[in-house]
Amino acid sequence: MVKKLGRQTVQLSNPPTISAFFSIVSSKEGEGPLKHYFDMILDDAKYGEETWEKAESRMVKECVTNAIAKSKIPANEIDYIFAGDLLNQCISANYAIRDLDIPFFGLYGACSTMTEGLALASMLVDGGYARHAVAVTSSHFCSAERQFRFPLEYGGQRTPTTQWTVTGSGAVLLSQQGDGPYIRSVTTGKVIDLGINDLNNMGAAMAPAALDTLVTHFQESGKNFDDYDLVVTGDLGMLGKDILRDLLRQNGYDDKGKLDDCGCMIYDIEKQDVHCGGSGCGCSASVLCSYLLKEMKKGKWNNIAFMATGALMSTTSSQQGETIPGIAHLVTISREKEG
Amino acid sequence: MVKKLGRQTVQLSNPPTISAFFSIVSSKEGEGPLKHYFDMILDDAKYGEETWEKAESRMVKECVTNAIAKSKIPANEIDYIFAGDLLNQCISANYAIRDLDIPFFGLYGACSTMTEGLALASMLVDGGYARHAVAVTSSHFCSAERQFRFPLEYGGQRTPTTQWTVTGSGAVLLSQQGDGPYIRSVTTGKVIDLGINDLNNMGAAMAPAALDTLVTHFQESGKNFDDYDLVVTGDLGMLGKDILRDLLRQNGYDDKGKLDDCGCMIYDIEKQDVHCGGSGCGCSASVLCSYLLKEMKKGKWNNIAFMATGALMSTTSSQQGETIPGIAHLVTISREKEG
Repeated sequence: MVKKLGRQTVQLSNPPTISAFFSIVSSKEGEGPLKHYFDMILDDAKYGEETWEKAESRMVKECVTNAIAKSKIPANEIDYIFAGDLLNQCISANYAIRDLDIPFFGLYGACSTMTEGLALASMLVDGGYARHAVAVTSSHFCSAERQFRFPLEYGGQRTPTTQWTVTGSGAVLLSQQGDGPYIRSVTTGKVIDLGINDLNNMGAAMAPAALDTLVTHFQESGKNFDDYDLVVTGDLGMLGKDILRDLLRQNGYDDKGKLDDCGCMIYDIEKQDVHCGGSGCGCSASVLCSYLLKEMKKGKWNNIAFMATGALMSTTSSQQGETIPGIAHLVTISREKEG
Repeated sequence: MVKKLGRQTVQLSNPPTISAFFSIVSSKEGEGPLKHYFDMILDDAKYGEETWEKAESRMVKECVTNAIAKSKIPANEIDYIFAGDLLNQCISANYAIRDLDIPFFGLYGACSTMTEGLALASMLVDGGYARHAVAVTSSHFCSAERQFRFPLEYGGQRTPTTQWTVTGSGAVLLSQQGDGPYIRSVTTGKVIDLGINDLNNMGAAMAPAALDTLVTHFQESGKNFDDYDLVVTGDLGMLGKDILRDLLRQNGYDDKGKLDDCGCMIYDIEKQDVHCGGSGCGCSASVLCSYLLKEMKKGKWNNIAFMATGALMSTTSSQQGETIPGIAHLVTISREKEG
């Protein structure tokens, strides 16, 4: 039976195994510190397509098909795919999944989408609703810039607190049986808004949501930083990570150096001119599906808490004077199925 | 144990009950044939807010809070809310849920969102992952027109195959225990694209997806039109409904007059100048949460199959020459828990 540890936290009784994963990034991420971990590095941000949006969609499709191929699981045994992205009406996901012949649940969780998809896929595999399920997401610097900010040709200046949208995608295939790593628990987040309205400071907008979900996870599961080798957020960036660490201390939690952030890991912050680090759904997805899972399989970490974070505004809501709500979903991943 | 009837169809072993539901529409829907069934009819499409987008968001919030109030279930026992809408980055849902303090899974399924949410909420309640869960969605004629088409002030002419975006919202609260009606099964759809690229003919774009999901449901469950008193699609409109009926006949299924469509039911098509009928996420949501569930509780129908349909394009994808992919998810609703 499912064990609900609290309102937001579920401990999975048949922890789904990560059967396969695949990541694609562009050359910028391919020049960063994780360059040896990505499965594919594109030298052309258009990936041979006519537009950036089509390139982003192709990354999603290629990540899924390659993850499935690596797993050797027949594609027609994959019962659900969970996908979403940042583009209006989530076209990267929709058009990628069109060609895949897999039942589809479309998500919008902004940059929290990777853990939103993993959370739902995990529960459906755990409960026997799916034999196998995929969670995938993407972002693309160029498609995001022109949708949310300025035409690239304009060459707009960036403020010091901005982050750089990762051009990348990552797909995880979950199964009922296998050798792990395993998704062991899920903590679903709430929408949290402390009133930040600076679109160039998303880390500050998302940090309170990350705090809320992480503290809820600790409270409901009875765990804390001692139980994890790494607690990794999605894309808070340098400033957001500092804010989260401060907020945790104020709430009585010392991270003991175990807190890190995908947005801080994917680039060489000093050298790559990315200001506060990486962002975008593809940031946490590509870091999970490269460095994190590959090193975990090698034994670097036994237990990690992985929490993607999203900022839920739009250009319209910002123009109408709204603040930026955030959300964070958390999954715990372990090398062992129990214990 | 969960009974998977096929890859896409799950028969729920602990069918969740519909504890409460609530609908809000604007005056136009309130002048249509279902006017006596809606819980709230707004005389102001701005709902006292400064913008249409904020009005749409407020409809979502009011539907959820009123459904919860009707159910008398404490809000802090509602474990998940599934919500999404048509606006870029799903701001209607995000900002509505911000004030509700309920763990949130954001969806993007275009006009299929109501059944996407019901499908996921049903499985999580059925499996014990949630005590109670809400599915809600919305649309607003004015916010949709200006995002997808023209400024309202422009007064653009509409082609005969267009549909009218419903200003409305509907919320359903599902629980583990109760008197029904019950969600008995879920059939999850695939993305289907037969190459329609006319943005003013969404019914034609979505009908093939509706066919695919309905035929899959029949094949996997062993049921057909004889097993349902009503098979109701989301918002195919007059033309889309005719196309679906034709496609069903070509595939050997006679609907025996049981097929209907929320987009055809919500307006007086002849008198209300809506061309092919209603559309938008709020169309199927508001019809379900008024006429369908109220008449079902009174005994008009024992078993219905409810299938919202979505068109997954964006203005960007259309401008880049893409066709319109469709998707449809189906849930079956019965007055009895078994049999």
